[in-house]
Amino acid sequence: MTEERESQKIEELLERLESAYPSKEDLKKALNSGKKLTIYNGIDPTAPFLHLGHSVNLFMLKRFQDLGHKVILLIGDFTAQIGDPTGKDKKRKTLNKEDILKNYQTYQEQAGKIINFKGKNRVDLRFNSEWWEKINSKEFLKILSFFTVQRMLERDMFKKRQEGKKPIWLNEFVYPVIQGYDSVAMDVDIEAGGSDQIFNMLVGREMMKFYKNKEKMVIAWPLIASEKGGKKMSKSEGNVIALNDSPDEMYGKTMSLSDEVIVPIFRLCTFLKNQEIEEVKKISLRDQKARLAKEIVKIYYGEEEAQKAEKEFDRIFREKKSPSDISKFSLKEKTINILDLLVVTKFSFSKSEAKRLVLQGGVSLNDEVQKDWQKIIKIKSGDILQVGKRKFIQIK
Amino acid sequence: MTEERESQKIEELLERLESAYPSKEDLKKALNSGKKLTIYNGIDPTAPFLHLGHSVNLFMLKRFQDLGHKVILLIGDFTAQIGDPTGKDKKRKTLNKEDILKNYQTYQEQAGKIINFKGKNRVDLRFNSEWWEKINSKEFLKILSFFTVQRMLERDMFKKRQEGKKPIWLNEFVYPVIQGYDSVAMDVDIEAGGSDQIFNMLVGREMMKFYKNKEKMVIAWPLIASEKGGKKMSKSEGNVIALNDSPDEMYGKTMSLSDEVIVPIFRLCTFLKNQEIEEVKKISLRDQKARLAKEIVKIYYGEEEAQKAEKEFDRIFREKKSPSDISKFSLKEKTINILDLLVVTKFSFSKSEAKRLVLQGGVSLNDEVQKDWQKIIKIKSGDILQVGKRKFIQIK
Repeated sequence: MTEERESQKIEELLERLESAYPSKEDLKKALNSGKKLTIYNGIDPTAPFLHLGHSVNLFMLKRFQDLGHKVILLIGDFTAQIGDPTGKDKKRKTLNKEDILKNYQTYQEQAGKIINFKGKNRVDLRFNSEWWEKINSKEFLKILSFFTVQRMLERDMFKKRQEGKKPIWLNEFVYPVIQGYDSVAMDVDIEAGGSDQIFNMLVGREMMKFYKNKEKMVIAWPLIASEKGGKKMSKSEGNVIALNDSPDEMYGKTMSLSDEVIVPIFRLCTFLKNQEIEEVKKISLRDQKARLAKEIVKIYYGEEEAQKAEKEFDRIFREKKSPSDISKFSLKEKTINILDLLVVTKFSFSKSEAKRLVLQGGVSLNDEVQKDWQKIIKIKSGDILQVGKRKFIQIK
Repeated sequence: MTEERESQKIEELLERLESAYPSKEDLKKALNSGKKLTIYNGIDPTAPFLHLGHSVNLFMLKRFQDLGHKVILLIGDFTAQIGDPTGKDKKRKTLNKEDILKNYQTYQEQAGKIINFKGKNRVDLRFNSEWWEKINSKEFLKILSFFTVQRMLERDMFKKRQEGKKPIWLNEFVYPVIQGYDSVAMDVDIEAGGSDQIFNMLVGREMMKFYKNKEKMVIAWPLIASEKGGKKMSKSEGNVIALNDSPDEMYGKTMSLSDEVIVPIFRLCTFLKNQEIEEVKKISLRDQKARLAKEIVKIYYGEEEAQKAEKEFDRIFREKKSPSDISKFSLKEKTINILDLLVVTKFSFSKSEAKRLVLQGGVSLNDEVQKDWQKIIKIKSGDILQVGKRKFIQIK
């Protein structure tokens, strides 16, 4: 890599960060020093799939990997195993080690499309149970003793819960300190994450001063806002483009994103360089979205699938035709309740879910919306049942 | 023991309690049930001596012992070993195991005057390091998960610190939960302590419900107010009658207690029964104090020493004579600074302490108060140096 290209890469990296501690200048200096840096990003292994919000992490880490730095992915398996035994607060669910490893396999499969899990400068995979299972209560209390209650209560999430008179359980309350100690255990140079992690990452920065007398840097990138009203895209908000969505779903969901997130997603969730993004900005919004949708499908499924998804989308939504690969379903019954129909065709897991779909106006038979969930329908061969915008089935 | 005497003992015990949870009625029922109960009292082993405030605990526990119940004294050696490594808050000092055991020997020697450390129903001595050293971080987090931040902040001491913008360190913050788990580890029926321990003891009561589905009772006795303005008598308030004070000191300090604490101390720190205390109330306050002073010296040094202390006190304060056993001190110097004199005669450990004594008007030479700490004094053989009310030395 020529020096010019490297400094360009560093610029593109820095410019995509939301903030850095002590400062972006310090980070720039470190990146230009020629020293190989160790950067870590923590993963909460509580979901069995990744979404576009996670991919921001992977693209940012990829930039460090490309510059020759060492990237550690830390699976928070210890912390994920700690649930709330009182059952009064379901915020964090308990996972056993088996679930976590299973989730992680999916994770690696999907993340491997972006960062290198193989080869010379591959990702170093760590699990925080490695050290936490050895820490006894005395050491734990020592770790706690570096921080005050007041400091923890500065955290946004805790502040809100306190103001809203919602319980903050003590095991959740010490979470930032537990995460902070992970930096010490791995002796990293940089901790990186989304901007909602800044508080926890800064606790780790202080912890590194206490334990190692070392200035750990903290860097934070922006969160991708969802299509619906600026909320962070995440599992718990339920507004996700999953990295294991089918090419058609992925394409369609991207096309329905709100206008203002298109450029940020180009910047943070694709391989496009700044200059290319500048070019994209010149085309129409509709075309920008189509370009982004295709780009994203390409990353996870390759060029061919991306083209197919594009064609399929255009066929349905531009030409208003039913999809070409519509599946057929054999139904014995001649008359059936609409909810039972949705369940036997596997569009719904349950009748209650089916009822919700019907009441929301998401179910059509031969282009006619079905709003009466108690209705008994007469079915004939060739009828087309449609759920949402992109799911079809033909009865035979 | 006849039944009548036993029910009398139970009444005297109940009537000396400040509060009981769930209620005094429940405690009474349990005490009358014939079941042998296990009652525990925790000791913070951070001071090398006991004082009259501690003796309340011992007398109350003695009452349970006399009724045939099992008394556990728990030495908080684990918790005492946890200091504050940041050095920003000196509230609790760190002790090593050796110091703790040394303190405990003194403790047993002094406490043995009141409760039985030997014989059939002797005190069961436990150390909380026994279980805490085996608790790992995962179990610790589980223990924490039963309680909320909001609950902990209800504790008086934490509330005050928060309002006063003083730091509450996380290791201190989880202290009630740690103490609470001790009840679980020992599977006790009752936790007992001074009324300033109610919060912590109730945390332990809840913990017992979570872990053992058991209704641990909590009982609290009153704190002895000090002579100076109603503050609790304790090490940190510096207003103590130590159980290892000399008979003369013990007698003299008791005589200078404020009027309103005399009856409470009779009730809580002597072997006198209610009926005897009623008799004592009929005599003059001066005589009540003398009776109390003699009673206390008798408990720790026996009848003979108590009589000697009484005579000595009367000689000095009633007959205004110097004490009969005044020590002699050989001084080479003919002129000496007042502070140096206090240091060489061992009345003070340091010149700064000596200066404080002088400025407070506590130092006299031949009955003349010395208020100028810079003064150079001429000394001749036979001069009497006096510090406070009861310390004398004769220069020879």
